[in-house]
Amino acid sequence: MAKPAAGAAPLDGNAVRTERTRARILSQALLLFNERGAAHVTSGAIASVLDISPGNLYYHFRNKDAIVEELFHRFEERVGVEPIAPESASEAIEDLWLYLHLMLEAIWEYRFLYFGLDDLVGRNRRLRAHFIRIVDRKSATVEALCESLVHAGAMRATPGEIRTIARNVLVVSTYWLSFQSLQVGDETSAQASLGQGAYQVMALVAPYLGVAARRHLERLGRRYLDA
Amino acid sequence: MAKPAAGAAPLDGNAVRTERTRARILSQALLLFNERGAAHVTSGAIASVLDISPGNLYYHFRNKDAIVEELFHRFEERVGVEPIAPESASEAIEDLWLYLHLMLEAIWEYRFLYFGLDDLVGRNRRLRAHFIRIVDRKSATVEALCESLVHAGAMRATPGEIRTIARNVLVVSTYWLSFQSLQVGDETSAQASLGQGAYQVMALVAPYLGVAARRHLERLGRRYLDA
Repeated sequence: MAKPAAGAAPLDGNAVRTERTRARILSQALLLFNERGAAHVTSGAIASVLDISPGNLYYHFRNKDAIVEELFHRFEERVGVEPIAPESASEAIEDLWLYLHLMLEAIWEYRFLYFGLDDLVGRNRRLRAHFIRIVDRKSATVEALCESLVHAGAMRATPGEIRTIARNVLVVSTYWLSFQSLQVGDETSAQASLGQGAYQVMALVAPYLGVAARRHLERLGRRYLDA
Repeated sequence: MAKPAAGAAPLDGNAVRTERTRARILSQALLLFNERGAAHVTSGAIASVLDISPGNLYYHFRNKDAIVEELFHRFEERVGVEPIAPESASEAIEDLWLYLHLMLEAIWEYRFLYFGLDDLVGRNRRLRAHFIRIVDRKSATVEALCESLVHAGAMRATPGEIRTIARNVLVVSTYWLSFQSLQVGDETSAQASLGQGAYQVMALVAPYLGVAARRHLERLGRRYLDA
């Protein structure tokens, strides 16, 4: 039978195919997890929707938790932003706003993590440790952004107040989707309520801002709500 | 065979016994639900711990959800406080503090509702409707308490800001225990963190208070943290 041609080309072709299958598994898993909750989706269901064999799926991910972990990892990369020291109060406000915006969009994109959080981290110590690391990093980023605002003269808050604000930002952003879904119970409305979530999170910082900074934040927020 | 004696006495005895069994079922169920999560406790397990027959338990509650609903109902009664118009700024602050304190203690006492919330209300429409009613009522109470503070000259906030504050109070108090348990993962620390939760919730209102009211709230909060 035909021997593979010499050289790297066929191997590359395999590597590309492998990578493409892996990417397809991840994006299909994300879709199904978000739709039905990770607890209600089996590896078999993912393979079946992709029309690949379970064996092919297991070749890429040894079980469903391995898929969840990889998605967790991608989520972490999305929100793992290092804030750069801003040059003005105005820049500091835009940095804060951009970060909160980015964080809430990422939470929406990976919402299965948040809707089934207790269950996911309750079952799996590694996921719990991973999630704690994400929370700690987000907290540190929010604190750094607030410190920049204080430094730029746009915010008045003690270090203790900043820690308290950052914790509340984390609680409200982590659970906003769950809170909204309790009340509305369907996804379309939950997406519409993401803007509302951003508003609620901004409101945690707003009372500590000077008048100009507060107006600036409100303008940015309004654009987001209208989008 | 012995006929029951005439008069109400023996019937009363039965009624008292019936009431006592019902109360024992409820308090044992609350204990087990809080320990293990409602999803992991069967009616049979409750009957077995109480050393009564499953039939006897079913006579009082047709299934586990009926027990959960009754506990929900008791929780609602605990937090269903009608605020009375306060006579001074100082009274208004104490009313707010007392209410937040009461709400957080009730949440701790019925913590199984909060740790397994998505799961509980996802499975049962009646529980969901019930929970929404509780949230709406709490929100209205927090808004009324803030309005009293504004009226007494102790707080500066627009009606829109008050609605936003009330929503954040609800999100933080509803999910604080879940947030903490993510990080610490055991119950003793979670109880210790209840004081911290109260602090986080008060911090949502504090920046809108005048200096005297803010100091008053801090004094009350410190007493709570030290208790």
